[in-house]
Amino acid sequence: MASDKFQPPKGMKDIYPEEMAARQAIFSTIREIMKRYSFKEVEPTKIESFETLAAKSGEEIEKEIYAFEDKAGRKLGLRFDLTVGMARMVAGSAYPTPVRWFCIADMFRYEAPQKGRYRAFWQWDAEIFGSASVYADAECIALGCDVLKAFDVDFEVRVSSRKLVQAVMEAVGIERDKILDAFRCIDKLQKMKREELLDEFERRGIMREKAEDLLDALDLKGEFEDVVEAVKSRVQSKDVNSACDELLQLRDALEALRVLENCVVDLSIVRGLDYYTGIVFEAYATNRKALGSAIFGGGRYDELVGIYGKDMPAVGLAGGVERLMEVLKAEGKLPEVSTSPDYFIAFVTPQLMDVCASIASKLRGKGYAVEMELMDRSLSKQLKHANRIGARYVVIVGPDEVKEGKVKVRDMESGEEKLVKVDEL
Amino acid sequence: MASDKFQPPKGMKDIYPEEMAARQAIFSTIREIMKRYSFKEVEPTKIESFETLAAKSGEEIEKEIYAFEDKAGRKLGLRFDLTVGMARMVAGSAYPTPVRWFCIADMFRYEAPQKGRYRAFWQWDAEIFGSASVYADAECIALGCDVLKAFDVDFEVRVSSRKLVQAVMEAVGIERDKILDAFRCIDKLQKMKREELLDEFERRGIMREKAEDLLDALDLKGEFEDVVEAVKSRVQSKDVNSACDELLQLRDALEALRVLENCVVDLSIVRGLDYYTGIVFEAYATNRKALGSAIFGGGRYDELVGIYGKDMPAVGLAGGVERLMEVLKAEGKLPEVSTSPDYFIAFVTPQLMDVCASIASKLRGKGYAVEMELMDRSLSKQLKHANRIGARYVVIVGPDEVKEGKVKVRDMESGEEKLVKVDEL
Repeated sequence: MASDKFQPPKGMKDIYPEEMAARQAIFSTIREIMKRYSFKEVEPTKIESFETLAAKSGEEIEKEIYAFEDKAGRKLGLRFDLTVGMARMVAGSAYPTPVRWFCIADMFRYEAPQKGRYRAFWQWDAEIFGSASVYADAECIALGCDVLKAFDVDFEVRVSSRKLVQAVMEAVGIERDKILDAFRCIDKLQKMKREELLDEFERRGIMREKAEDLLDALDLKGEFEDVVEAVKSRVQSKDVNSACDELLQLRDALEALRVLENCVVDLSIVRGLDYYTGIVFEAYATNRKALGSAIFGGGRYDELVGIYGKDMPAVGLAGGVERLMEVLKAEGKLPEVSTSPDYFIAFVTPQLMDVCASIASKLRGKGYAVEMELMDRSLSKQLKHANRIGARYVVIVGPDEVKEGKVKVRDMESGEEKLVKVDEL
Repeated sequence: MASDKFQPPKGMKDIYPEEMAARQAIFSTIREIMKRYSFKEVEPTKIESFETLAAKSGEEIEKEIYAFEDKAGRKLGLRFDLTVGMARMVAGSAYPTPVRWFCIADMFRYEAPQKGRYRAFWQWDAEIFGSASVYADAECIALGCDVLKAFDVDFEVRVSSRKLVQAVMEAVGIERDKILDAFRCIDKLQKMKREELLDEFERRGIMREKAEDLLDALDLKGEFEDVVEAVKSRVQSKDVNSACDELLQLRDALEALRVLENCVVDLSIVRGLDYYTGIVFEAYATNRKALGSAIFGGGRYDELVGIYGKDMPAVGLAGGVERLMEVLKAEGKLPEVSTSPDYFIAFVTPQLMDVCASIASKLRGKGYAVEMELMDRSLSKQLKHANRIGARYVVIVGPDEVKEGKVKVRDMESGEEKLVKVDEL
């Protein structure tokens, strides 16, 4: 066994063949859905300047960046999401808007390792740059729904609006310069008890009564019309009204895109990153076996791209690949992909390896997956190996048969053997 | 335009849609060839402990590692190749041998940036662990050849043997403890003039006359039989003979695998990494337009896996994705992949966006790539956009037609328009 020092570092993991086969199948399905929504694949660089990463992401994330200097003293960091890099890419290019991009790739956060969570992880991520329309928000939600439907996951999308939540904050009297702090508190709503959360508000300088008013006003979950009505009955302001109107427009767009039945409004959703500005959403598994953190999440972030040099509204979503795999595993829906060869080429004596190689080459030329014996084992051990790796057929190359231009082909399922001319394989 | 500080850091680059589409097409082809050779995809972690990376890679590479500490003070580094990680993975697992793995992924080296070379780059890499057979070496070479043939590249593989070169070194009197230095010098043979190279030998404490004898003996390139005969006539030793026998065995295996005609022996090839121990090879473009560094390279490294805890012979190859793309581009063979949508859904008035969304949803459900207008533009501007993004058809949703349950469909190639029932789209 390898010594500890040669294991992956803490929080990192290697991907072995079985998991990789499932991943690649998942990526293919996601790519197919992305294609239907006419998103084009890109990938920003993994190493960014630290400045780019820290520009508008928030205090929580900044602490988690793997930061280092290169040999010329540049301050660099490993990306912690794909949105920042894609926003920088779109700002630095001139594609016709709206730009519809996706990326399936890995990123890094120095988090406390937990079961099933790593410091290097993968996301599928799609963004629409350049459109301020609520239909762009709806398309992102619909895309996420279609991805989960393609995997037959049971889920609900909880939709909210940072505009509406902010309007409520202002209506209950939270000061402008405390809004960001209030969002950061609300993001912890699901992880903290109400009392702890009120303490957290206080630590950030938001008075207890205002925080209580806010939490009461946000404690709303349900159909779009019902939540809109309820929030309007509790809090009145012009901004509340206009944010409510937007939510109702989104409702209609989601209906047209045939995903309304998968969505509810939940005003406690605000997302953890500071760059969000409008509609936000998170999808959760509803199957009891697969409960846990969000399967995907996203929202509108109209001010991020501007930081990188070009003012542009934007909306997007991202989902963790490992989280999706965990959900699929829990529901027994992880794609099972065979990586077994079609043929294993065995020999009776190693003097026949050239014949084996030429048969392997011939079958490969026809598109079959072929492995030949490379270990100089006895025939019985070769057959055992072929069985272990799940080879469908074994070609047995023996001296007597080869003289007649023939080989034995064994069907590993039925055990049947046939003599076949090499030319007719 | 974005300011400089928000560009990718020096030596890094973003991948935009056109390049990504070509890459993904290339990856599909490589995966198909890997499958035929029954290699299974894996991926080692990108962040390794520095100790793992530095274990047996050589002085040149060690200088180029992006090294940093995590917040717990662990010495880490970004991987500089895929072989080291895969060797560590195989040492830490218990798959039936031989283990046939491949990986297509990115890595990092702090090199001086050159045209077309980046500090983050991709490789396709395949390894066979557990077999000491020269047929495993031959399968790796054949795999590489089949990859390049799948892209219709003109190339030759230059094959050599570090065992043979080492036997020659010993025969000309180079001391055992200078062998590694001598290999490092020979690796520079193609980049340096003979005089400079002799100086380099001297700097490393290898006498000029011995170095000259060595360079003369290695100045051999041609058919397997011819080179073997020539080297044997110049240098006699038991080790030379046995290394020559292995080369001739390899020749027969390459012939059986139908790639001998793509291979020549070139004893000046030794590879840059210290972990190689046996047969080594590099493939070069032969088309004048695509000349340059190796397209793939590899060889046997029987002592690397042992370092990570399990003694195991191994052989593998890797090719640079960017280098392959450069070659394909030069030869006009880069895959061209359309990322244009099948349908663009335009509206006459934005009040019809719900209808557009439901048509988009319906066409997506049938597997088409669909983009709908999200910018609130005039119809003529929408059509211009549809043309610019290469949409095959435009569905025009107008109030009069919609009343009759119909839409106009414009064929963007012929310019023809038809009225079609929404139900029959």
